[in-house]
This record gives sequence, structure tokens and C-alpha cells, in this order.
Amino acid sequence: MSIITLLTDFGIDDEYVGLMKGVILSIDPTAVIVDITHQIDPQDLVQAAYVIKSAYRFFPKGSVHLIVVDPGVGGRRAIIAVQMMEHVFVAPDNGVLTLLAAVRKIDKMVRLTNHRYFLESISPTFHGRDIIAPAGAHLAKGVQLSNLGPEVDPTSMVKLPDIGCRISESGELVGKIVSIDRFGNLITNIDSKSLTAYCQSESDARVQIRIGYRVIFGLADTYASAGSKIPLALIGSRRYLEVAVNQGSAKQYFNAKKGDTISVISNP
Amino acid sequence: MSIITLLTDFGIDDEYVGLMKGVILSIDPTAVIVDITHQIDPQDLVQAAYVIKSAYRFFPKGSVHLIVVDPGVGGRRAIIAVQMMEHVFVAPDNGVLTLLAAVRKIDKMVRLTNHRYFLESISPTFHGRDIIAPAGAHLAKGVQLSNLGPEVDPTSMVKLPDIGCRISESGELVGKIVSIDRFGNLITNIDSKSLTAYCQSESDARVQIRIGYRVIFGLADTYASAGSKIPLALIGSRRYLEVAVNQGSAKQYFNAKKGDTISVISNP
Amino acid sequence: MSIITLLTDFGIDDEYVGLMKGVILSIDPTAVIVDITHQIDPQDLVQAAYVIKSAYRFFPKGSVHLIVVDPGVGGRRAIIAVQMMEHVFVAPDNGVLTLLAAVRKIDKMVRLTNHRYFLESISPTFHGRDIIAPAGAHLAKGVQLSNLGPEVDPTSMVKLPDIGCRISESGELVGKIVSIDRFGNLITNIDSKSLTAYCQSESDARVQIRIGYRVIFGLADTYASAGSKIPLALIGSRRYLEVAVNQGSAKQYFNAKKGDTISVISNP
Repeated sequence: MSIITLLTDFGIDDEYVGLMKGVILSIDPTAVIVDITHQIDPQDLVQAAYVIKSAYRFFPKGSVHLIVVDPGVGGRRAIIAVQMMEHVFVAPDNGVLTLLAAVRKIDKMVRLTNHRYFLESISPTFHGRDIIAPAGAHLAKGVQLSNLGPEVDPTSMVKLPDIGCRISESGELVGKIVSIDRFGNLITNIDSKSLTAYCQSESDARVQIRIGYRVIFGLADTYASAGSKIPLALIGSRRYLEVAVNQGSAKQYFNAKKGDTISVISNP
Repeated sequence: MSIITLLTDFGIDDEYVGLMKGVILSIDPTAVIVDITHQIDPQDLVQAAYVIKSAYRFFPKGSVHLIVVDPGVGGRRAIIAVQMMEHVFVAPDNGVLTLLAAVRKIDKMVRLTNHRYFLESISPTFHGRDIIAPAGAHLAKGVQLSNLGPEVDPTSMVKLPDIGCRISESGELVGKIVSIDRFGNLITNIDSKSLTAYCQSESDARVQIRIGYRVIFGLADTYASAGSKIPLALIGSRRYLEVAVNQGSAKQYFNAKKGDTISVISNP
Repeated sequence: MSIITLLTDFGIDDEYVGLMKGVILSIDPTAVIVDITHQIDPQDLVQAAYVIKSAYRFFPKGSVHLIVVDPGVGGRRAIIAVQMMEHVFVAPDNGVLTLLAAVRKIDKMVRLTNHRYFLESISPTFHGRDIIAPAGAHLAKGVQLSNLGPEVDPTSMVKLPDIGCRISESGELVGKIVSIDRFGNLITNIDSKSLTAYCQSESDARVQIRIGYRVIFGLADTYASAGSKIPLALIGSRRYLEVAVNQGSAKQYFNAKKGDTISVISNP
């Protein structure tokens, strides 16, 4: 019995996710399939990259993670399977694994070419169902990565440029909003390590968080540590900087949208 | 093999629910996890209280129900595990179990304090993942309630005030809309028992249901018993009074919203 | 261990789907339950008919498919179980199985009447939970179709009229949009076989696809074969004609809605 996770931009209105599960269970009836989310904004590789990086470690070692955010489906991009940290990731080679590759060593990477592990008939528009799902099911069943296709140099993996936060010329730590969750919390690409390095200490009371023309002073520990409807900044459950409004929506409060800049100034 | 249900206000856009499942399966790989719903309106404890009360009894005895609607996360509210009716419920002690506690005797209630059954690192903003999910998985695996923390007096459980329907001074049975379902049906907090007691008989043709300035005469058995696009009232599948429009939406017809008053007058 | 799929118009905001799963697992704790989708537009039998026809074949033989799109719940429509192609389908007899019945021989069809396989108390408004879910679970556990009720003549099954595409008097192949997916792709009821028969060859470069006043020339193989933001037509993963916009939304581009006409002209 193996765990297979699914992370896609398919949404849930259509039968697409259900079909992937049908394909998986046809090959490995004992697979335990878990949806991470299917609500990645269509073709948003950056958002998906942050989600898979934050999510995989809560699953048992040996899990197989299938990521289908695939703007280039039917084109010339490869599909790869990557082994690292005792997890396996199967995805188009389009940069969606950029953040994983940045933190840990890839043990093995193959390019999926062996049709024996795909569906017999491959639609040019739905490789999630026809290639990634069956390959993932075979991996979950114990097929070795090397059976799926030729090993390739992990350094050749496609990377997304400028995905992380950066220090600006004026000395600010500059990031952006990569997800807005259901509660209206603004989740940035400023990770706690970068923030700590920048501030010397996360709990530095003199840090300022800027969003548009507004400033939040200091980092909170919990949503409840600000008054009701008061904005705050904290390190969220992903271990990234988040801007929230206690018992309210930071999205509405700041009229914020994905991609907006959020920056940190220390000891100003 | 045990069944673990999830009821949250996390929505499905984010990875939060998936992470809870990963945590559960890391502890109990044989757990069967069922989503009741994740679309409780953010922090709406009343709505969640009605859903869990209506839902639990369709699951096998021995099921573990995890409820994460948690406006006070990171604050001083306790997390409790409650055993009753051969089911186990794990939730913040914030009133979300009010209706369950009202109908049946609680056999045992403990306050979760034993970190051995939590994740090693506990985020101040996501106790669903870090405390409730792992505790629930351990319970599903057979760990006894008493291992999770000290037993507490069930009567000390936090209760939501004024959650049920009531008889008004003028003698009406007054309730409110607690959920509006996908079909636009208006689901009230007027339970069939209170209604029967009030009317002597649910099928009393002379009962009137008032919503705003409008009145529906009598209770129907099925949606189809009214003409097309005609409003009706009935005891719905939850066993609560529901206002519906046959082949239409009562939400639109009455321009209704959650919290609106619906009242019943008998033998007027 | 058997697979049970669910296809409904219940949405995911309410507890309805969760309750069906609870009922199933109470009867067959080893059932593997897969959601095909619950986002069929309320009471849209045509949309559901196309989804189940496209979806079932990706699941293993022996799967039990429960379809609950049921505008006549509580009325006089029957509930049927149908065996065909080594799959079992349980649904209201309201036409939702029209397309399956059109392509293959029904091996056996019964009308569900045996209360032994239903819940004890049957709500007049939720037969999905009280009849279809328990009957499906018993079938998955190995109960024979004939135990559920009397066999009926498969030709008596209710059919949806005019569900497929047709040749118009002026010689066009005329269809309509039956689904619009999350990416804004317009999925029609023009199946690849009808299209091939009409055009002699799917790849006939001289075919024209008309949507409103606009025309797309020829069929593409992949979304990426058109320029960015350029509309195209192709045979989609369902094997039906689809109109898409590469890296964009055909729904927005054409301001299209479900039910709109799309037609094909060959060798004009």
C-alpha cells in the first residue's frame, strides 16, 4: 500500500481528477490517493511550486507525488520522475519542482519515455491521465524509476527564474504574494530563513512589513495576538511570511492580489 | 482500520486539508479518511455544530470525527476529545459540540495536553494539522482517550448560546436559517421534534411558515409536491425545517441569507 | 475490495456527499470511494450523461458507479441498477444513462424495490443517501443485482431526447456545448466518430468549426498548436469536439455558455 498525492490546476468542476484516480486504481487497487489541492490557479507554476514544497514533508516517506500543472501539454516539454528525500515526484519538466531542487539533493531523475507504463492510447491534451497517473501508480506499486525511462542529469531540470525573495538595492527584503488562502491571508515567498537572516531574529520587534503604502510593525505569533480586525504579520504554517487580519480578511483589508509586493525593512 | 472524518472551514483552495490527511496517514496508514465538508463559512461555529450533529450518525460506530473550525487558534482555548454514542469527536473547546452534548450523555471528555500525540513542532496557527490530526490518528489506531490528557468534567464544555429555536412571547416557534445548500434550500434550526411538539403533529395542515412578509401554508412531504417554481416547507433530510422552491432556489425566491428568521405559527 | 464512484450535482458546500460515504462505509468498510465530480450543474441530466459516459471506462471492471442527479426525488421515478460492460450503474431512471445505453448492450437492469438493501428510514428528499448509497455498497460487497428488485426490460429505460449531435437540413453537423471546463474549454456533444464520418477524416484541414458568427478553420492536435491566445478546435480528452484558446479561455473569448450551438462544415 502506497500513498499517491495529487496536486493539479484542474479544479473540481470537471471529471479530470476522478479519471486520474480511476487510472491509478486500475493499476494499483491498494493505492491510497490524497488530494493536496486541485485549485492551483490555471497554469500557475509558481503557486504550485510553493505548495508542493510546503506539503510533501507531511506525507510518509515512500509517497509518490503527482503534480499536473502543465501549460505545455502536448508540446515538447518532458515529463520527469524525481527521487529525493525518500519521496518521488512526477511532473512535467516545467519548473514546478524548482523549490524542491533548491533545498535538497536530487538522488535520481528520469525522463518518462517507456510507453509500457502509460495508458495505451495517449491523448495529446491530457497527459495527467494518460502518462503521469499510470506512471505514478506503477511507481507506487514498486516499479523502479529507471524502468520508466533514461536517467538524466538533475542539473538539467527546468527552473523557474526569480521565484524567491531578494534583497533590493535599497536594502529591503522584497517578496511577493504567491497565494491568498480562504481566510484572506496573504502568503508570501519570504521564507522564515531568509527573514531570520535578514533580521538577525524573527522576533525582532523593530522589523517593519510594507504592503503598498501601509506598514505593519513587528511580527506576531498568532492571529489572535492582534485586536479584532487589526492587520498583523507572522510566520505562517508554511514557514513563510504571511499578512493577516485577525478575524477578518487581509485580502479585503489591503485590497491585495496575488503577485503584489510585500517587503520587510529591519532596524529602520 | 478506522474511519476518520474531517469537518473544517478550510475550503479546498489551499493545501490545508491535504496536509491533515498526510499527517493522519503518516501515523495510521490504514485510516479511511472522509471529508464531511470543508466549506463551513469561515469561523461559523453554529453552522458546523448543526452539520456534525446531523452527520455523525451516518458513520460507523468507532469513527473519529475531527472538527476544525477554530477562530481562537493559538489563543487560550483548549482542544478536547469527547467520547459519546460510541463515536469520538476531537475539536477546539469553542462550542462546536454544543448540539451533540445537548442530546446525549458524554461518556468521557479529555483535554489534549500530551505532546507525545502531537506533531513535534507545533505551529501557532495550524492546530488542525499539528494537534488535532495526529491526536485523531492515534485515537483511530486504538490509543485511549485518557492517554491524550487529563479527564475534565463534561459539563465544563463551552456551549454556544441561543443556538436552537425558541417559542416567542407571541407564541410563535421562531428559528433562523443556519445553512443554505447548493440548491438554494434554506435549512433552519427548527428541528422536527420541536416542530412536532409545537404543532402536535408535523403533518398539521394548518401550520404556517413565515419568512419575511411571506407565508407558506402547511408542510409538504417532497420538493415535487409543490408546482414548478413554487415555494414549500418540509422536514428535510437533516430532520430540520427547510424552505425550498420546487425546481428552483428558495435563496433567490426569498432573497434569503444565513441568519434570517423563519417562524412557524400553528392553528392561527 | 471494490471501487464505488460518485457522480452528483450536490456540490461540496454541504454534508450530502460525506453522508453518502458514511452510509457506504457503514455497509462496506473496505469500499474505495472515488468522486468523479459533484459539480454537475443542479439537475443537468445531459451534462451528467456525458460525464459518466466518458468517465466509467477509466475505472476497473467491477466498479459500481452511483449517479445522483435527481430532479424527481420523492416523486414517482424509479431507481435502477444496470449491469453492462462489466460495470454496474445505479441511478434514478431519468435518462442520465441514455448515452451508455446507446453504445453498448445492457446485460441486466433491475428496479430497486427491496428495502432490505436501503437505509431503515428513507427521507423523501435524499434517496442518494438512503437508497442509492446503501444499494451501491451492497452491490460492491457482492450482492447480486437480482436481489435488489425485479428485473425490467432494458428498452424501457427512460431516455433523454435529442442529446447527440445531428446533421442539419443545410448539411452542417450541428452540436452544442454540454460542459465548459475550468480552463474555459468548450466541450461539445459532437463525438469524434460522428465528426470523422462527417468529414471522412478528422484531420481534414478543410473542415470549419462555427461558433456564433465566428469560424475556426481546421482541427488542431494540441492546445499549443495555436499561437498564444488564439482559438482552436480539437478532439479533446473525452473524444468529443472541443473549442479552446491556447493559454486563454474560450469561454471568455467567445462569450460562450452551456447550450450554445457549435457546428461543423466540411469542404465548404
